[in-house]
Amino acid sequence: MTAERQWIAALAARLPKYGAGVRVGIGDDCAVLRPRAGHEIVVTTDLLLEGTHFRRDWHSPESAGHRCLARGLSDLAAMGASPLAAFLSLAAPPERMRPQGRAKKSWLDRFLDGLLALADAHGVSLAGGDTAQSPMGGVIADIVLLGQTPRGRALLRSGARAGDRLYVTGALGGAAAELLALGHGQSLRLKGATAHPQLFPQPRLAVGQRLLGARLATAAIDISDGLSTDLDHLCEESGLAAVIDAAALPVHPLAVMAAERGWAASAQGLALHGGEDYELLFTAAPAARVPRQIAGVPVTCIGAMQAPARRQPRMQLRSAGGSSEALAPGGWEHFRPR
Amino acid sequence: MTAERQWIAALAARLPKYGAGVRVGIGDDCAVLRPRAGHEIVVTTDLLLEGTHFRRDWHSPESAGHRCLARGLSDLAAMGASPLAAFLSLAAPPERMRPQGRAKKSWLDRFLDGLLALADAHGVSLAGGDTAQSPMGGVIADIVLLGQTPRGRALLRSGARAGDRLYVTGALGGAAAELLALGHGQSLRLKGATAHPQLFPQPRLAVGQRLLGARLATAAIDISDGLSTDLDHLCEESGLAAVIDAAALPVHPLAVMAAERGWAASAQGLALHGGEDYELLFTAAPAARVPRQIAGVPVTCIGAMQAPARRQPRMQLRSAGGSSEALAPGGWEHFRPR
Repeated sequence: MTAERQWIAALAARLPKYGAGVRVGIGDDCAVLRPRAGHEIVVTTDLLLEGTHFRRDWHSPESAGHRCLARGLSDLAAMGASPLAAFLSLAAPPERMRPQGRAKKSWLDRFLDGLLALADAHGVSLAGGDTAQSPMGGVIADIVLLGQTPRGRALLRSGARAGDRLYVTGALGGAAAELLALGHGQSLRLKGATAHPQLFPQPRLAVGQRLLGARLATAAIDISDGLSTDLDHLCEESGLAAVIDAAALPVHPLAVMAAERGWAASAQGLALHGGEDYELLFTAAPAARVPRQIAGVPVTCIGAMQAPARRQPRMQLRSAGGSSEALAPGGWEHFRPR
Repeated sequence: MTAERQWIAALAARLPKYGAGVRVGIGDDCAVLRPRAGHEIVVTTDLLLEGTHFRRDWHSPESAGHRCLARGLSDLAAMGASPLAAFLSLAAPPERMRPQGRAKKSWLDRFLDGLLALADAHGVSLAGGDTAQSPMGGVIADIVLLGQTPRGRALLRSGARAGDRLYVTGALGGAAAELLALGHGQSLRLKGATAHPQLFPQPRLAVGQRLLGARLATAAIDISDGLSTDLDHLCEESGLAAVIDAAALPVHPLAVMAAERGWAASAQGLALHGGEDYELLFTAAPAARVPRQIAGVPVTCIGAMQAPARRQPRMQLRSAGGSSEALAPGGWEHFRPR
């Protein structure tokens, strides 16, 4: 038995019992899933590449594994979907499969610890995938998430209407701020669930499901590339413009700390353009009663959608004094080569 | 607009209209699929890594793209499934996105040509995926295929019974033989659909669907790792042993040519252990009337399943003279580092 097969056997052995929607999991040519009657399937795939989406010297293996699954779960959250199953394609250099340290765990074992802890928290079954040795020196992961929504009810980017209010969950700019801290070899101390928005972002599945179930949202997207870039996508798909109220932006406390240390020009800039927050951005009709908190997560109205006008920029940022400036998509490009 | 976004926009523009099962394709957080009522979903993911699953100096970009999709389609074929949609996660170094040569096509454009030609031939919609720049020098692809089967009817590896006959489609050893030729910088001339089993393998979707539809097969698997390895999987999942009739093996003519040139010890060895043929291996009840040809593909009975016995090897190869030897899984390991 090759090291690869041994590793898969060890992985399969540690997986919890599959959820209700999984009829056949790991071990056949395909997994077999049984969605609920009257439901549609939503599907997303997300690459996580060492050197592009995480750095070995900044992200622990547990953080990389958590982030891998969080990327996909956040896409399900943006559709209002319930998770059905996850599939992981994973390639790594052989040395990452070898046990190391006191705990005798390999890098990949710890990666899976992080991934499976988040899967467990959201009741997601890992039902299959693929593995290979990476000839390229770094870890390569592709996460596939399948979810289900009642037929015709998935939250799309294209459903917003002029006059709709614009909302975000949680606070923005924290993931970018924590990444800046890592880049400076420092850590920013904060307590509680929001302490590590970069290393352990929390996908907003319960919020998305509530938005769909209560018919609150007209459109939704997750903030992976930064508010300005993802709002631009939402405007484009809905054929609308948007105005953001600068004073209303929920700026993450870590963004404030990062700006105070001089790592960023402003905390607001991080909130507007910093990516990887994995919060939800959604629209709701003006008459909709959107709670200030959903499933324990703060929800903030940050502006409104409007009909596009010829000489107006697609996105505007309105200051407290009432003046407006154009807002361009300036989303975070991670640490990709430019 | 980044080069990546431009490339995705160009890709989306060239895609044909989505098939019936795709309600929302590229452009939202997730694709939305609508399976047929009373059907289950089957899912498979397959990595295709440069240097592991293909070599740039041996495989043209079109071949790499074809093989990428063929890997996934072959898994659907082994379940007897109809394709619902494909998703492609793709990372490449920036220079592979740049137009080259007279046709002004980039390596990735040609990769997609190969992939989309096969998708078109089988009516498969590319409904989403992910892209990134590869920081690792080589092309990284992960193909995800979703298919559908009538509820409870998917062909599993575990369904074989003692006494069932064992069948394969097409001929075996051709893909390994053509790979040997590429390694020797030579080409083996052959005409027709079976001319390039390595560069352009043909997934047996129509055969699989017919096996399911006519309730012919009790179990099935595709031959990706080599007959001996994949039969071992089928035996294990079904809790059975198997006897192969050596004289009955449909040996690919390229395997004979490769052996004649001294690149392999024997053509039979390539047929037994050579991988990547993407033919189907299936079992059927002794009373089942299995045609000699299904959907234009030859079908050959190569042996039978039997109850496991204590002192007998799980797999045996019976020669024309009647003597038997143990057969061990010796599947092709591509050109992986060992």
